[in-house]
Amino acid sequence: MANIPTNIPEKTVERLSEYRRTLIRLRRQGITHVFSHVLAALHGITAVQVRRDLMLIGFSSDTKKGYDVQVLIDFISAILDASTDQNIGVIGMGHLGQAITKYFNGKGLKLKIVASFDTNPEKVGTTIDDVPCIAMSDFEQAVAELDINMVILSCPARAAADCVIPIVNAGIKGVLNFTSSPLNFPAGIVVENYDITTLLEKVAYFVKEREENEL
Amino acid sequence: MANIPTNIPEKTVERLSEYRRTLIRLRRQGITHVFSHVLAALHGITAVQVRRDLMLIGFSSDTKKGYDVQVLIDFISAILDASTDQNIGVIGMGHLGQAITKYFNGKGLKLKIVASFDTNPEKVGTTIDDVPCIAMSDFEQAVAELDINMVILSCPARAAADCVIPIVNAGIKGVLNFTSSPLNFPAGIVVENYDITTLLEKVAYFVKEREENEL
Repeated sequence: MANIPTNIPEKTVERLSEYRRTLIRLRRQGITHVFSHVLAALHGITAVQVRRDLMLIGFSSDTKKGYDVQVLIDFISAILDASTDQNIGVIGMGHLGQAITKYFNGKGLKLKIVASFDTNPEKVGTTIDDVPCIAMSDFEQAVAELDINMVILSCPARAAADCVIPIVNAGIKGVLNFTSSPLNFPAGIVVENYDITTLLEKVAYFVKEREENEL
Repeated sequence: MANIPTNIPEKTVERLSEYRRTLIRLRRQGITHVFSHVLAALHGITAVQVRRDLMLIGFSSDTKKGYDVQVLIDFISAILDASTDQNIGVIGMGHLGQAITKYFNGKGLKLKIVASFDTNPEKVGTTIDDVPCIAMSDFEQAVAELDINMVILSCPARAAADCVIPIVNAGIKGVLNFTSSPLNFPAGIVVENYDITTLLEKVAYFVKEREENEL
């Protein structure tokens, strides 16, 4: 594309990812066109929000039949996806790490979990859905060999800090941190912290606030 | 407290939850006071951000020794926590549901997973860390008996839509949705959608954007 917009807000990037998944589902159902208000309703947001997001990325081919589903999928993919598959490693093969690995398998995404890492010798050498578990001591070498550029951190919180130096040394560019330990990385690394406790406490807070407002 | 502030922004609520977890860890290490810039560094943010968040909730007891760790924990808890324990149900006992249940167990939070739900007869009747797995057909009754007011949705995406009506009918107030299916609930229910694919695609997008800017 001639002009790929940059500086797209985080929330818009999240919604684009969600729109695309919905559009792929619609395509599978044989639907070729969708109106902004239908897409909006499927996501529980307003049509204005959908149109604003698509305007932000320069998509404007709204027709009388609505958006062309395939054209919009391709347009969003050109924004979100890198030109090649992205290889991902999962650090920590506890319950969460295993769940994430199985969850991703066979989703047909550009993002591929190609290896997992653990310090437990009983886990090293095993595979989950063809994803091998490699010793954390071999992390740097495996990252280079398998061309991994992002990691999902799902180890126990107490082990998370020990992963920072290997991640930095291996040249990892993005970290999705599911541990409850906030981590400091150099400015060049993209980090998203998504601790499940935080998410749940947030829902609980807004439930409480709503109940208090109703009294 | 006389004046509990309301309308706290979502991101501030998330950070308050994270600050509290860090403060509890500091307390466990015997630390009684912490400066805003130390708390900031532990979270990879600026001291200005920390002070702004705490100002928003009306906390201003900064001393020459920094914030009193215990006082700040209590202050944040008064904001975030309901006066009683909150009972939570997990819908879908696949890998992710099991991981979440085990993860929460024994964390000593006000939020307690008291039951899980599944449609698979082989799972119904089993327990994970003392959390019983109940048939989804008994959802409404169990919610009433166990006083559940929030659910975590970790079932397959294709099953997520079938959970909406039982959740609404049972009077659930908050939903943390980990499925890749965006769901529509009536306005009275607090919903947070956290699909792992979306989170990972977001990290991947910002990694890609950063790499392109460096070229």
